Amino acid sequence: MKKLINCVENVEREMIEGLVKAYPNHVRKLDCGNVVVRAHKKEGKVALISGGGSGHEPAHGGYVGEGMLDCAVAGAVFTSPTPDQIYEGIKAIATDKGVLMVVKNYTGDVMNFEMAAEMAQADGIDVQYVVTNDDVAVENSLYTTGRRGVAGTVFVHKIAGAKAETGADLNEVHRVAQKVVDNVRSMGMALTPCTVPAAGKPGFELNEDEMEIGIGIHGEPGTHKEKIKSADEIAVTLLDKILADIDYNDKEVAVMINGSGATPLMELFIVNNKVHDYLTEKGIKIYKTFVGNYMTSLEMAGFSISLLRLDDELKELLDAKADTPAFKE
Amino acid sequence: MKKLINCVENVEREMIEGLVKAYPNHVRKLDCGNVVVRAHKKEGKVALISGGGSGHEPAHGGYVGEGMLDCAVAGAVFTSPTPDQIYEGIKAIATDKGVLMVVKNYTGDVMNFEMAAEMAQADGIDVQYVVTNDDVAVENSLYTTGRRGVAGTVFVHKIAGAKAETGADLNEVHRVAQKVVDNVRSMGMALTPCTVPAAGKPGFELNEDEMEIGIGIHGEPGTHKEKIKSADEIAVTLLDKILADIDYNDKEVAVMINGSGATPLMELFIVNNKVHDYLTEKGIKIYKTFVGNYMTSLEMAGFSISLLRLDDELKELLDAKADTPAFKE
Repeated sequence: MKKLINCVENVEREMIEGLVKAYPNHVRKLDCGNVVVRAHKKEGKVALISGGGSGHEPAHGGYVGEGMLDCAVAGAVFTSPTPDQIYEGIKAIATDKGVLMVVKNYTGDVMNFEMAAEMAQADGIDVQYVVTNDDVAVENSLYTTGRRGVAGTVFVHKIAGAKAETGADLNEVHRVAQKVVDNVRSMGMALTPCTVPAAGKPGFELNEDEMEIGIGIHGEPGTHKEKIKSADEIAVTLLDKILADIDYNDKEVAVMINGSGATPLMELFIVNNKVHDYLTEKGIKIYKTFVGNYMTSLEMAGFSISLLRLDDELKELLDAKADTPAFKE
Repeated sequence: MKKLINCVENVEREMIEGLVKAYPNHVRKLDCGNVVVRAHKKEGKVALISGGGSGHEPAHGGYVGEGMLDCAVAGAVFTSPTPDQIYEGIKAIATDKGVLMVVKNYTGDVMNFEMAAEMAQADGIDVQYVVTNDDVAVENSLYTTGRRGVAGTVFVHKIAGAKAETGADLNEVHRVAQKVVDNVRSMGMALTPCTVPAAGKPGFELNEDEMEIGIGIHGEPGTHKEKIKSADEIAVTLLDKILADIDYNDKEVAVMINGSGATPLMELFIVNNKVHDYLTEKGIKIYKTFVGNYMTSLEMAGFSISLLRLDDELKELLDAKADTPAFKE
C-alpha cells in the first residue's frame, strides 16, 4: 500500500484538519469529530448538510461555503458517519428556516441521516432531505438498495445551495434539490482498484488489460469486466446507458466528467472530447461542462460521466455564485 | 499501460480539443496546432504566454483566461513546443503593450521560446520573458542546466497575469513576474512513476516500499531514493530543503500542495496538515494555501510543496480576480 499517510487510524481526522488549515476563511471543524461547517454561519437561509464516508474528496468538505453546503460530515473511509456526528452538524448550522440534508443512497448513510434528523426534529429543528441515486449502472449494489448516489450529488449541492442562498423556504429548496435528483444520471468505470487504508489491500482486482464498467464509488461491482477499449468507445458505452434511462432529446444539459482520484486530467479532457461530440451528434445541447476530480474513490483510476437535464431555473442556479474550497463559480 | 486514450499519436490534440469543448467561454484553439488562447482577446494589456510539454495538465491551457494567461502552447508529452507554435501563439495575442513569456527552465523550452521571441521581435512585437527555476532539489538535471521550473510557475501565471490585467506596461509586468521567480521555491517526491503514452512503459522504477525524493515533473531523478516514510516525515524533508534555500524567517508565504496527477486529495490534505503546523512552529505566517492538482506529471503519484514569500504587492495580485478553467479566485 503506497500512500501518503501517517497511520491508518488518523487519516480522516488529519485530512479534515488539513482541509481546514488550508481554507480557514471558508471552513472550520467542530470539536465533536470530523464535521466541517462554514467559517461564518449565515442566518436567514435554509442550511444544507451532506456527507458520507471519507475517501471521496473533495466531497463533501470541499463543498462547504457560500452557495453550496453549510456542513459536511465525514465518516471513516467508505463508511457512513454516525447519527451523533450528523446531529451535531445539524445543530451547528440550523437556522429558523430549517435544514436540508443531501444524502447519497447507501443503506448506512440513509439510516444514519434519518436517525440524526429525528434527533434534531425532537429539538424542534425543521429537517427535510433528498436522497441522490444518479448511478444508472446497477439497480442494487453492495451497500445499496436501489441505485447508488454518485457524482451527480455535486450538482445537488451546487443548485440547492444556490437556491438556499436566495432565502427561499425549506419546501422550495427541497423542491429544487429533488428536481436535480430527478434529472441527473451518472455512470462510471475503473482501470485500477483502490485501497481502503485500514484494509491495506485493494478492494477488488483488475487484470492489466481489464477494466470494470459501471463501478461504484467504493469499488462496488459494476455491470461487468471487459478488455480495455479506447477512451472514445468507453465514453459511448457509458453515455448510451445514461441516455437510455431518461429522455434527453432536445434538452440542454450540464456535463460532469469526474475523475476517480488517480486519473490524469489529460485523460479526462480526452474523454470530454468524445462526450461533447457524441452529445452534439444526438442533438443534445451542452450548456456547461465540468472536468475534474469532484467525487473520487481514493486512488482509483477511472472516471464517471454525469448528465443533468436543465431548465431555466436550474441554469440560473447552476450559474449562481459559489465560493468553496473545491468549487468556485 | 492503462490509460484512457484513443491512440498515442493524438493524445495532445484530443486533450486540447476536450479542454476547449469543456470551456468554450474561456478558451479557443488556434488552427496551427495545440495552441490555446483566450476566447476573447483583450487589448490594452500585456499579453502573457506560457507552455511546455503536455502531461502537466491543467498546466498550462487550464490557466488561460482573465487574470492569468492569454495563451498556452502545448508540445508533445514531456516535449518542448516548437518555435513555430510559440510564434503563432505570440502573434495571436500580441497587443501594443507587448508580450511576456513565462518559460519553465528546461533547455528545450528556453531555446524554443527564445527563437519564437526573435521571430516575433522581427515582426516588431515587443517580447520579454522570465524563466522559472523554483525546484530546489537538484542544480542540474536530465533536461535542464540549472534548476528546473515546476509548480511555482503557477504563481507566476497568477501574479503576473493579475498585474497585466491592470494595464501595467511590459517592464512592470516583467518586474513582478521576476519577483515571483525570485521568491518561490518548490520540491517534490514520487511514490510511483509515470508513463509517456508513446513510450508505453514507465520512465523510471520504484520498488513497492520505495519513494523518490526531489523528483522532477517529468520523472527526472531527484536527490535519492529511500524507503517510504510517513507523510509528516516526507513533508518535513521537503520543507527543510526549501527553507534552507532562501530566508523565510518572519515572512508571510503562499503555500501550494500540488498533486502529481494520481495522488488522492485526501493525501494532499494530510500533507498540508503537517506543512501548516511545521511552518507555524517556525514562525512563518501562511497567508493563503492552495491544495490540488496544479502542475501534474501524467499519472505519477506524489506531490510537491511550493512556498512563495509575499509582500503587500504580491498579496494583492495573488488575491485579484482570476477566471480560468482550472483556477478561479
